Amino acid sequence: METAEKIELKEVYITSDFWNNYRELVVKEVLPYQWQVMNDTANVAISADPQNNGRDKNSHAVANLKIAAGEMTGHHYGFPFQDTDVYKWLEAAAYSFSYHPNPDLQKITDNLIELIASAQDDDGYLSTYFQIDAPERKFKRLQQSHELYTMGHYIEAGVAYYQSTGNELSLEIATRMADCIDSNFGNDENKISGYDGHPEIELALSRLYEQTGQKKYLALAKYFLKERGKDPEFFDEQDRVDGWDNDILPGMRDLPRSYYQAAEPISEQKTADGHAVRVVYLCTGMAYVARFTGDEELLAACHRFWKDIVRRRMYITGNIGSTTIGEAFTYDYDLPNDTMYGETCASVGMAFFARQMLKIEPKGEYGDVLEKELFNGALSGMSLDGKHFFYVNPLEADPIASRGNPGKSHVLTHRADWFGCACCPANLARLITSLDQYLYTIEGNVILSHQFVSNEATFGDEVKIAQTNNFPWDGNIHYEIKDERHIPFTLGIRIPSWSTNFDFRENGRKVRHPVVDGFIYIEISDSTTIDLDLDMEVKVMKASNRVASDFGKLAIQRGPIVYAAEEVDNSAPLWLYKVTPNAETTYKFNDSLFNGNGVGIIQIAATKETLEKDGTPLYREATTQEENSVDMRLIPYYAWANRENGQMRVWLNEK
Amino acid sequence: METAEKIELKEVYITSDFWNNYRELVVKEVLPYQWQVMNDTANVAISADPQNNGRDKNSHAVANLKIAAGEMTGHHYGFPFQDTDVYKWLEAAAYSFSYHPNPDLQKITDNLIELIASAQDDDGYLSTYFQIDAPERKFKRLQQSHELYTMGHYIEAGVAYYQSTGNELSLEIATRMADCIDSNFGNDENKISGYDGHPEIELALSRLYEQTGQKKYLALAKYFLKERGKDPEFFDEQDRVDGWDNDILPGMRDLPRSYYQAAEPISEQKTADGHAVRVVYLCTGMAYVARFTGDEELLAACHRFWKDIVRRRMYITGNIGSTTIGEAFTYDYDLPNDTMYGETCASVGMAFFARQMLKIEPKGEYGDVLEKELFNGALSGMSLDGKHFFYVNPLEADPIASRGNPGKSHVLTHRADWFGCACCPANLARLITSLDQYLYTIEGNVILSHQFVSNEATFGDEVKIAQTNNFPWDGNIHYEIKDERHIPFTLGIRIPSWSTNFDFRENGRKVRHPVVDGFIYIEISDSTTIDLDLDMEVKVMKASNRVASDFGKLAIQRGPIVYAAEEVDNSAPLWLYKVTPNAETTYKFNDSLFNGNGVGIIQIAATKETLEKDGTPLYREATTQEENSVDMRLIPYYAWANRENGQMRVWLNEK
Repeated sequence: METAEKIELKEVYITSDFWNNYRELVVKEVLPYQWQVMNDTANVAISADPQNNGRDKNSHAVANLKIAAGEMTGHHYGFPFQDTDVYKWLEAAAYSFSYHPNPDLQKITDNLIELIASAQDDDGYLSTYFQIDAPERKFKRLQQSHELYTMGHYIEAGVAYYQSTGNELSLEIATRMADCIDSNFGNDENKISGYDGHPEIELALSRLYEQTGQKKYLALAKYFLKERGKDPEFFDEQDRVDGWDNDILPGMRDLPRSYYQAAEPISEQKTADGHAVRVVYLCTGMAYVARFTGDEELLAACHRFWKDIVRRRMYITGNIGSTTIGEAFTYDYDLPNDTMYGETCASVGMAFFARQMLKIEPKGEYGDVLEKELFNGALSGMSLDGKHFFYVNPLEADPIASRGNPGKSHVLTHRADWFGCACCPANLARLITSLDQYLYTIEGNVILSHQFVSNEATFGDEVKIAQTNNFPWDGNIHYEIKDERHIPFTLGIRIPSWSTNFDFRENGRKVRHPVVDGFIYIEISDSTTIDLDLDMEVKVMKASNRVASDFGKLAIQRGPIVYAAEEVDNSAPLWLYKVTPNAETTYKFNDSLFNGNGVGIIQIAATKETLEKDGTPLYREATTQEENSVDMRLIPYYAWANRENGQMRVWLNEK
Repeated sequence: METAEKIELKEVYITSDFWNNYRELVVKEVLPYQWQVMNDTANVAISADPQNNGRDKNSHAVANLKIAAGEMTGHHYGFPFQDTDVYKWLEAAAYSFSYHPNPDLQKITDNLIELIASAQDDDGYLSTYFQIDAPERKFKRLQQSHELYTMGHYIEAGVAYYQSTGNELSLEIATRMADCIDSNFGNDENKISGYDGHPEIELALSRLYEQTGQKKYLALAKYFLKERGKDPEFFDEQDRVDGWDNDILPGMRDLPRSYYQAAEPISEQKTADGHAVRVVYLCTGMAYVARFTGDEELLAACHRFWKDIVRRRMYITGNIGSTTIGEAFTYDYDLPNDTMYGETCASVGMAFFARQMLKIEPKGEYGDVLEKELFNGALSGMSLDGKHFFYVNPLEADPIASRGNPGKSHVLTHRADWFGCACCPANLARLITSLDQYLYTIEGNVILSHQFVSNEATFGDEVKIAQTNNFPWDGNIHYEIKDERHIPFTLGIRIPSWSTNFDFRENGRKVRHPVVDGFIYIEISDSTTIDLDLDMEVKVMKASNRVASDFGKLAIQRGPIVYAAEEVDNSAPLWLYKVTPNAETTYKFNDSLFNGNGVGIIQIAATKETLEKDGTPLYREATTQEENSVDMRLIPYYAWANRENGQMRVWLNEK
């Protein structure tokens, strides 16, 4: 019976103005721009971020591949994982073809596949840094080499490109890489009992398994997860053999083992520690393998890390990573807003993790976090012109502080042209171009619609769901469902945790359904319309009072959008403003702001202390300070730093 | 006429219980303990502070001198300025003889002088690092070498030891050093047109001039001040000649020139930038030279830097240095409480600067800051047992944060046994043992009594001033003045800025004198008693609202003492407490606390939010949180971290 009812997603076509804006921006601006950068033909300033001081002005990423392929001579330039810039770009381009066929671009990407194939060694190995400049060190310093990370990124791109274009070579490169890794890693004699310092290969191999059905790739992914941290000395031992001081990335050896999630086996790790991107890539890999294998230990680790991140270590915008030192998590409830990291890649990775968890179990919390990342933490990484990027996404910034206090020098208050370590721009691009893959989860005869992104989706040949809305600005979500099979199936619609109230109509009639783990389930057996009215009231939010940095502060949210105050709208200093939990607020969509992109603006009644004179005594007996009533104007967090450089803060002082 | 009335300070004998406690502690605990450490016979854990990770467990400071003297063989160990630990200790010991004659210790120090003399080169040079391991690099890398800094510290010690004991050799070593420097530095051909990366020699040469009357030392001090920053390339050029990568202190070359106050001539430096200790040592040197030479440019720089530090860059406790990166000032009004530096040495140096400014002009502000350092910022550097020390003095600390957030790893929440870079312990010791020199300033026939430290002082042969009080716990300051000369003189008594109200009696009669620049002036021509009743009300203090980190926060002060809440008295987390500007407070002296040292305790009415449950949603709509009325118990800031390890904060949330 169940098999008869099994539904398969065939196609999703996004119709959301909000997202199509971004998706076209990626096609028209981001992809061409990034291609130029990677080919060193763009006139850009490559930003020196704190992890990347003093690097110079080219990417050399395509050149590295050409040298490895024998088409050019010279040395490798850039980070050992420089190749991944190309692969993530390729993956983003592959997804874009699904909504924006682009023969010119596809000529470029087809040629790129040829180039990559030609750069690949006979045994399937591909990491241009080692091929060009250090062939004797292949797999010899995995703590720093990023070799499996790099190949993992290609495998993801290769699978996506094959799925999008049918290009067999792109998949073949991926399987040859995976076979190379398989023949080099494992517990057999003559193999390396180890893993990469940067998780990624685990999720890539899972995707390759998903595509090819080849169980050895799944087994290898699982092997890496189970091997990790078993021998905490593994990296040190490799470093000693390779030459203790012979670092590929200076300074990395000094980071604690937990930075690499390699201090103990995953099953024994209680908290989400270390480099935030590594953690969420690892979690995504674990969720894939847990789903495909039913491994309880890995599933338990997914739950444990999810809970620790989401309940104790995540900013209200979905950003993660509380310190620049190691771009890492720190400790539970430590969420400083001005010295934080909040890397764009970490939010993108968190979206990956959430998506995989949704495939394991239908819990609204996963959809909530995915939505939070999409509309806030991840999206903030790109400017509205598609040409400038944040690596670090703070919740409180001040150009004077970034310039004047070295503990905040990693916090940029304007997006950069590019980065020497350019992981973020293409990572965000691939999330945006693949957004259609993030809207539905199907299990048996249950379709979960967990994101409010207008779209038209076809399931099998006969089920069509059209979702129309003006989300995130308006809360009425309209569904038209056509089921020409007339076989009942279940549609689960997520009720976001921020929507305290909502109104639910089926074929125009108000219906009360229970909310089960964040979803309402409706049996559908015929053409049906659904109207969900979400709660779009402006909400004044508070953090748990376990968070010292947010104590006595309030943040403003409407729907999934977290708001921020910018100096361009509110005269500095922003810390002088105070709001109350029941402050009067007005919401208005402004379609002229941000070059006509339009955003919903919130005004909130506040008071502002008069700034004291410069040079008067620093400390004095407390007396009441003069205050004025003012209105603050707030913009969506994702849209900050698109106008004049200035202060920004999400958390406002509570009066 | 004026010469006839000129008064000279002959002797000050401190009778204050509060301070004699510390002064005896230095004699009984600190000096013997530090001597053991420097001789590597103490069983201590040398703390790895963030500037000093991974150093091991000995000081080797005396051994370095023995090697240089030919009494031992081996290599130099420790920092290039390791010698200064010995010199500051020697200086502290020298001062202690004035109130605690100590023939056993003097045998040790006399022998130490012999050792130092024997380590000194024929030309007067003495810096054991260079003598032992890098003689070819003498004066070749002044950015990092600390050679003049090191010899400056000896010169200070040598002068003090000569003044205290009459030991001619100790002064001779100092003059030979100064002559060595004089023959090597200057704008003549064949001399080095440059200066040391760490100011200190300027103040040391001034002291040597003061002792010997030799104008060449004053001229040399002035030369270094005027030369500084003239050629901003100076250090870089030396580094290039010495071998660009051939660092003595790795990483120092990356610091900006402002770190060394070498980016531009002092006359052009508008703000107090760079390494805080360097700044205040430089300022002290400038104040000395300005006083002795009348140089207007240097005096203007003293005023400019003083104002910038005191009005914009100083914590309420007197601590300075807002960032651990470069142990430095950041920018005006940037005073983070939990990531700050607040080095003990910087507070000691600020006391030096204040003392010199008082000698230039009678302004109460200088006395206020000196007092603030004595009772708060500097004093906090030592435990009540005299055996544990703070390098960093935060205003907000949490052991969990120090362990868990690498941006706070420099903040210790317990004082350390010793430091690899051990500048602070002996620096504080020499301040405490020389405290008698900080109480009076004399100009012509005016005696300024600017500190409330019980003492008996003799001026010339016939004027005696006895000050008795129980300060800082009680505010009645009693003076008995005997003038057997019967020649009128003026006594200026400081009215602290924290004493809004006061009561002033002369020979029992209430008198109203105007307060002129922080002082009351009384003409004395006979035996007189004065009773000054200071305002010892508990004050709830606020910072200028230009200070973002203190906005919405209150600090508690009584007299000169700034108070702090500790977890041992107030259940954590401390950020959940709120107080109001008019909160009820009670003050009580508790003589059993802190091993019978006794401290004044403040109770303040507060509310405390109930801590939310772990693992509940991080963010939620703002509602009122349950609060309880509680009393907070506050202890003096200087006394924190003498009991159980735990949270501490000076700035409490304002309700």
